[in-house]
Amino acid sequence: MTPHDVRTTVTGPTAGLAPGYTQANLIAVPVDLAYDMLLFAQRNPKPCPVLDVTDPGSPHTVLAPGADLRTAVPRYRVWRYGELTAEPADATTHWRDDLVAFLIGCSFTFEQALAEAGVPLRHGPNVPMYVTNRQCRPAGGLHGPLVVSLRMVPAAMVDTAVRVSGLMPAVHGAPVHVGDPSALGITDLAVPDFGDPPVAEAGDVPVFWACGVTPQAVLMASKPPFAITHAPGHMFVTDVPDSEYRVG
Amino acid sequence: MTPHDVRTTVTGPTAGLAPGYTQANLIAVPVDLAYDMLLFAQRNPKPCPVLDVTDPGSPHTVLAPGADLRTAVPRYRVWRYGELTAEPADATTHWRDDLVAFLIGCSFTFEQALAEAGVPLRHGPNVPMYVTNRQCRPAGGLHGPLVVSLRMVPAAMVDTAVRVSGLMPAVHGAPVHVGDPSALGITDLAVPDFGDPPVAEAGDVPVFWACGVTPQAVLMASKPPFAITHAPGHMFVTDVPDSEYRVG
Repeated sequence: MTPHDVRTTVTGPTAGLAPGYTQANLIAVPVDLAYDMLLFAQRNPKPCPVLDVTDPGSPHTVLAPGADLRTAVPRYRVWRYGELTAEPADATTHWRDDLVAFLIGCSFTFEQALAEAGVPLRHGPNVPMYVTNRQCRPAGGLHGPLVVSLRMVPAAMVDTAVRVSGLMPAVHGAPVHVGDPSALGITDLAVPDFGDPPVAEAGDVPVFWACGVTPQAVLMASKPPFAITHAPGHMFVTDVPDSEYRVG
Repeated sequence: MTPHDVRTTVTGPTAGLAPGYTQANLIAVPVDLAYDMLLFAQRNPKPCPVLDVTDPGSPHTVLAPGADLRTAVPRYRVWRYGELTAEPADATTHWRDDLVAFLIGCSFTFEQALAEAGVPLRHGPNVPMYVTNRQCRPAGGLHGPLVVSLRMVPAAMVDTAVRVSGLMPAVHGAPVHVGDPSALGITDLAVPDFGDPPVAEAGDVPVFWACGVTPQAVLMASKPPFAITHAPGHMFVTDVPDSEYRVG
């Protein structure tokens, strides 16, 4: 599948699709909230590494010049005052001329590099994601907790997973935590807040990466009047090779 | 010298001072230009990797909690409509309550890592800096050319210099160009636009890094009503160890 194929045909989660291409989280907010959102992202670069910001009203991004952000994401979430009000497959009727869209790096992007380095990917169509007890650094009217994604990694491969993902800071980089979930305030790994339950084998260690669903937790906490996001795991697949975001 | 020593006593360029600590470029703009500035930085992460953004009017940054941004920089530049109007050692009387300060990573930060890797640092108190013929990606009312810093590197060490700096993307990362200056529109290496002339030995290759003086070239090109910056090479020395910005 090419990125274009994913953008035009897929309706489910995008993990493992169009391998080798960068995937992105979406959060679109009215222009009067755009500075707070961009500042929030700058102040929280682990969960919110910004890959592109559109001009107000434009549904186009340099990350995939031919794509329309109103239709290219498999599933959207529409938010009003912190409440999820719709989850459409097409956001065209919800889009507004004053929306500024932020494309934020997604950890699906480094999964190809993890696999090439021999780190097995246990999860199914979607990763497990959890709201943590860590608060992000606020910006203007925006505040909220850090969300993380989980991958179960064989103990002997944790160092490889840290090193490989650490070289891709624009798609969340190295893990924020390895081991005990309770250190993040996660009480039951089997019940993620978003995505699929984890799949583990004997000797696996839970490894947590900062997650681009964090802005959705921020919407729930901060309750701005309006926003459109992707649905967790249902990413915008760009035309940018993942190598573009690999350093070192 | 500690970072505090540099901030309180130095009046010249800061290259090589307080080794092991992160140095930063400063650009402070009125709040109504802050979104354009932050967006410009996001769209041009090589020259403008943002380390912190202050709240409007605040002269304080998380990068050095005890420091006052109005006095901690060795020398400032005050800009009105794209013209340099003053170059004070203390910016207190020029500071305004509506200013938002951006601290942007500086390549002085990776010089310690270069030196540890065996790359000799030829330059004197300041590096040579040049305005190039490459245009940055515009944002709102802000546009202008890329500025680069130059280090002359022995040919056999260029790969090391690329690798070591490439692991520090928040302080400009890998070079933007190696070799022929004319590819960047630079006609005479001996006459930099800012800083000191280069010092070279036989067999050296010119290596160019994106530079945090770029926002000053943007001020000259875009002519906004007001801004305060550092003077090139006269950096804000933070309390943050350089290892904080090293990945991999």
